[in-house]
Amino acid sequence: MRTCRYRHGGSERWGLIEGDRVRPLTGEPWAGGLPEGKPLALGDVTLLAPVRPSKVVCVGRNYLAHAREMGNEVPKQPLLFLKPPSAVIGPLEPIRCPAGSTDVQHEVELGVVVGRALSRAGAAEARQAVFGYTCVNDVTARDIQREEKHFTRAKGFDTFCPVGPWIDTGLDAADLSVSCRVNGSERQRGSTRDMVFDPPALLAFISSVMTLWPGDLVSTGTPEGVGRIQAGDWVEVEVSGLGILRNPVA
Amino acid sequence: MRTCRYRHGGSERWGLIEGDRVRPLTGEPWAGGLPEGKPLALGDVTLLAPVRPSKVVCVGRNYLAHAREMGNEVPKQPLLFLKPPSAVIGPLEPIRCPAGSTDVQHEVELGVVVGRALSRAGAAEARQAVFGYTCVNDVTARDIQREEKHFTRAKGFDTFCPVGPWIDTGLDAADLSVSCRVNGSERQRGSTRDMVFDPPALLAFISSVMTLWPGDLVSTGTPEGVGRIQAGDWVEVEVSGLGILRNPVA
Repeated sequence: MRTCRYRHGGSERWGLIEGDRVRPLTGEPWAGGLPEGKPLALGDVTLLAPVRPSKVVCVGRNYLAHAREMGNEVPKQPLLFLKPPSAVIGPLEPIRCPAGSTDVQHEVELGVVVGRALSRAGAAEARQAVFGYTCVNDVTARDIQREEKHFTRAKGFDTFCPVGPWIDTGLDAADLSVSCRVNGSERQRGSTRDMVFDPPALLAFISSVMTLWPGDLVSTGTPEGVGRIQAGDWVEVEVSGLGILRNPVA
Repeated sequence: MRTCRYRHGGSERWGLIEGDRVRPLTGEPWAGGLPEGKPLALGDVTLLAPVRPSKVVCVGRNYLAHAREMGNEVPKQPLLFLKPPSAVIGPLEPIRCPAGSTDVQHEVELGVVVGRALSRAGAAEARQAVFGYTCVNDVTARDIQREEKHFTRAKGFDTFCPVGPWIDTGLDAADLSVSCRVNGSERQRGSTRDMVFDPPALLAFISSVMTLWPGDLVSTGTPEGVGRIQAGDWVEVEVSGLGILRNPVA
């Protein structure tokens, strides 16, 4: 099953994707939203970010090779940080480079959408709480990150969290290819099998700190190959079997 | 004017405090909520956190003396971090010490509640966007903070963001006393006049990074004197002219 959020005729709705059509849902897909009304052609709607999370929890250094390219050891437990919900944008929305940075970088990541409240859970319960997966671009002002050491500002600018194009609820996340292209040229390629902590382990760990709510987004870290993007570029992040999230850079 | 959020007879409402009574509001106070229905005795309701923010933006090292006690220089610009909304609790709700920490600490802070959307604002516009002020306890697992360097986990545990008891919209924040007592014994006392960046400057800076939404909470940093709390303690954080936020430690 693939779920989305879309704009059509001035209103914004949750939707269910069926082939090249989208059916409106009565509510959030993870909260029992049911199909209602006539399907629309996918080409006639504007896809929005498929989540409206109460929080976006990200994980640093979750692929060995990327941790090394940044000069870091792999941590013994997941390194958590937050992106503000105000950073979330959908497919085709522009990533805006802030005035204070000259080194904005792409980071392709597998996003996990939480389907039910999760607190102090074990891995088995966490696995059951996965609603589905989506593509995330953890856009980062690398110069600000290096200067401040802390991640909040460097990764928290408006538009720095493209998500989409939809959520796929049927994927097995054990061995998915995650890749990033800039203007058609491949920059990153990795596999989720090289994650230090897999999605259930991440959700369980995060839930030992903070309660995850239905619709929350967990981004699972990026493989090696991060690099600069600039105004005029097109960035594509892809998860195999899921889809491609495309955003221009403004 | 003082606004709150409360529970009464199984329902949760926004309210307006009038002396020792509270009047229900039709909606969020910063979104045009109007009084409706009969006032209730303040003693008959349970006060909840007076905000339900889309994000909680905090500021590190905003008082010179606290920055020094932590061995840090005062930054040239505000150091931002986020607490997850899942950490927010109200008056009298217990702060829970997590299993992984043996050094949970109090940090009294002046909280600023945002009244209107704010993006790339100057200080004058930011000043106009302040809805009111409240008390915040930026509870911190200091051992985890020192070990990880990053703040998200150390400051993001459930219950680590007590807020309240209400929002005061009439305060002048230029010279307010902020203090903290543990079991009646004073641990912190400072004045907002010693802030490195005042609330309008903080809101303006934050809005240059991320859009602030109505109801968002900005916590403005803590003065010196932070210290340990443990199960069985009562913590009071107070802002002069505003009120006292009390929480037990579990």
